[in-house]
Amino acid sequence: MDISHIEHIGIAVKSIEEHLPYYENVLGLKCYNIEEVTDQKVKTAFFKVGQTKIELLEPTSEESTIAKFIEKKGEGIHHVAFAVPDVAKALAEAESKGVKLIDQSPRKGAEGLNIAFMHPKSTGSVLTEFCDNNSNK
Amino acid sequence: MDISHIEHIGIAVKSIEEHLPYYENVLGLKCYNIEEVTDQKVKTAFFKVGQTKIELLEPTSEESTIAKFIEKKGEGIHHVAFAVPDVAKALAEAESKGVKLIDQSPRKGAEGLNIAFMHPKSTGSVLTEFCDNNSNK
Repeated sequence: MDISHIEHIGIAVKSIEEHLPYYENVLGLKCYNIEEVTDQKVKTAFFKVGQTKIELLEPTSEESTIAKFIEKKGEGIHHVAFAVPDVAKALAEAESKGVKLIDQSPRKGAEGLNIAFMHPKSTGSVLTEFCDNNSNK
Repeated sequence: MDISHIEHIGIAVKSIEEHLPYYENVLGLKCYNIEEVTDQKVKTAFFKVGQTKIELLEPTSEESTIAKFIEKKGEGIHHVAFAVPDVAKALAEAESKGVKLIDQSPRKGAEGLNIAFMHPKSTGSVLTEFCDNNSNK
């Protein structure tokens, strides 16, 4: 496994609009992109902090996993995503070491990244994602 | 506010020993330091991923805030820490913008950093810390 950095931290929020002033005015971070990821039923807002993005995730449907997360645990940090050279290889390596996968193969996430999630039961209770940027190159 | 990067992510765990194999053998990260922070009643284990550390936090007492967090929410991501040039100045700026503080002034955290927490009610439900490394310079 060759993780280079934390690509992003995903934070579940009820409303991006409500939280923008904290990130922009208090922390001084600039929201550089807002986009909807329809298959995950979320709207996302991105901020860059050094190597890492903060990704706010607002559910666009009650069926969204983010809506269910907020209902169960409240707003807060939802997942962490590691940048790897190749998501498919990282998944195969993790699975070979006994990790239970949520995604058996990479799929498209926000910003055109290839992404895949591992199951928090195998990752110390932290929902964990791998990302690569190979499709954008 | 001049945040340079995410200094660390704090993850609450019942047992560092139990989670080490995931971080070391699956993710391939190296635990480079384990230390006890007595006033916070935790044992901490550190891994470096690019600019950011992952800090596992294991309670050493049932009175630890980490023990209470795990009891209430289960294991998982507990806080995010931003690197700033001067924690005292960052706190003053945040407070002037209406943020409720947990720590009114910096205190010593793990690895000799100056640290201070803001209240999650003011930070989008994410327990958020500022860190500077000025005491180690």
